[in-house]
Amino acid sequence: MTAPVLYGFWRSLATFRVRVALNLKGLEARETSIDIFNGAQYDPEFMAVNPMSAVPALVEEGQAALTQSLAIIEYLDETHPAPPLLPPTPRGRAEARALALMVAADAHPLVVPRVRNYLSGVLGLDEPARNAWIAHWSRAALAALEQRLAGRPGPWCMGEQLTLADICLATHVAGAKLTGIDLTDFPASLAIAERALALEPFARAHPLRQAGAPAR
Amino acid sequence: MTAPVLYGFWRSLATFRVRVALNLKGLEARETSIDIFNGAQYDPEFMAVNPMSAVPALVEEGQAALTQSLAIIEYLDETHPAPPLLPPTPRGRAEARALALMVAADAHPLVVPRVRNYLSGVLGLDEPARNAWIAHWSRAALAALEQRLAGRPGPWCMGEQLTLADICLATHVAGAKLTGIDLTDFPASLAIAERALALEPFARAHPLRQAGAPAR
Repeated sequence: MTAPVLYGFWRSLATFRVRVALNLKGLEARETSIDIFNGAQYDPEFMAVNPMSAVPALVEEGQAALTQSLAIIEYLDETHPAPPLLPPTPRGRAEARALALMVAADAHPLVVPRVRNYLSGVLGLDEPARNAWIAHWSRAALAALEQRLAGRPGPWCMGEQLTLADICLATHVAGAKLTGIDLTDFPASLAIAERALALEPFARAHPLRQAGAPAR
Repeated sequence: MTAPVLYGFWRSLATFRVRVALNLKGLEARETSIDIFNGAQYDPEFMAVNPMSAVPALVEEGQAALTQSLAIIEYLDETHPAPPLLPPTPRGRAEARALALMVAADAHPLVVPRVRNYLSGVLGLDEPARNAWIAHWSRAALAALEQRLAGRPGPWCMGEQLTLADICLATHVAGAKLTGIDLTDFPASLAIAERALALEPFARAHPLRQAGAPAR
């Protein structure tokens, strides 16, 4: 069977999440870059894949596109159960999903290109004001996560098992670092994220290691 | 066993989603109102329940709070499987979750009180500009959903089975109507939503039927 196509972008944190999940499961995908910094997500060809004009989208041969990073990761977890990315109990799964959503729903959708474009194009915000917006929402999620994670035994958000929550936390932290956000207020979150980002499946999926990324 | 406590607010669409899921499952909860229009989500007492300062939060007796509406609904679906709120196949579940996330991640987090407060308090936007922001993101999600849903056989997003996707769509449409957003461009989405909102488990959960809502 041909490997699925992952429509993504080097800097997209939602694509980063899916890349990590694929790597953790030992799955291959052929990544196709959609340059969301230059509006390629609005090309009719891509909008036919995902009318939300957002990456990632995962296309298995002959099938409709799967969209939304969390839905894609749950799909990969259901179809390729090893290693599991959700805890074994309903309460554990609820907690891991809630931590994931604190990043993927409460923070990340506020800082994606379409929102940054509205802030500059419609509201006329300058770059410092846009950066303050990004930092505010990135830090708000981390402040809430820190309260949840501080004092936990680790090494991961949910204890011994690396889960979807760690994928969302680590990719969020990596993004915050790329943006130059000060993370010293969030030591527990940072420790978990750095532990994850040091793993090969995370490191290989990092934005700066993708095609199109600026040279370091 | 004592019924769980649902921390919510009459106008919260995320609480509305959980109320619908509880009703569909035939489950009772004692709702406690957190007045997010007046900052009650920042009371230390509530922040101990949910450090994200957001409703809903569901507390089962003697247990930690469950937060994030989608995580709560998946938990209810796992612990009370009838009627199921997700399709039987991994692809079906991925699609239903993606449609749900188009509302619950891509649109709703952009229009909640904490964001509206930033728009007015930090960015100094007046009410028309704030309302234009809300309408823009509400309609952006509906435009994408409409492309996905137009031409489907119905009666629900995923066909014969009412799912999490319908809960998210119908509550989003109900919220858009309360805000006075024009929905004529989205006939397929509107038809599904109105069909759902006419059902008793949705109607009984509607914001305007909750304690604290303005008299109609």
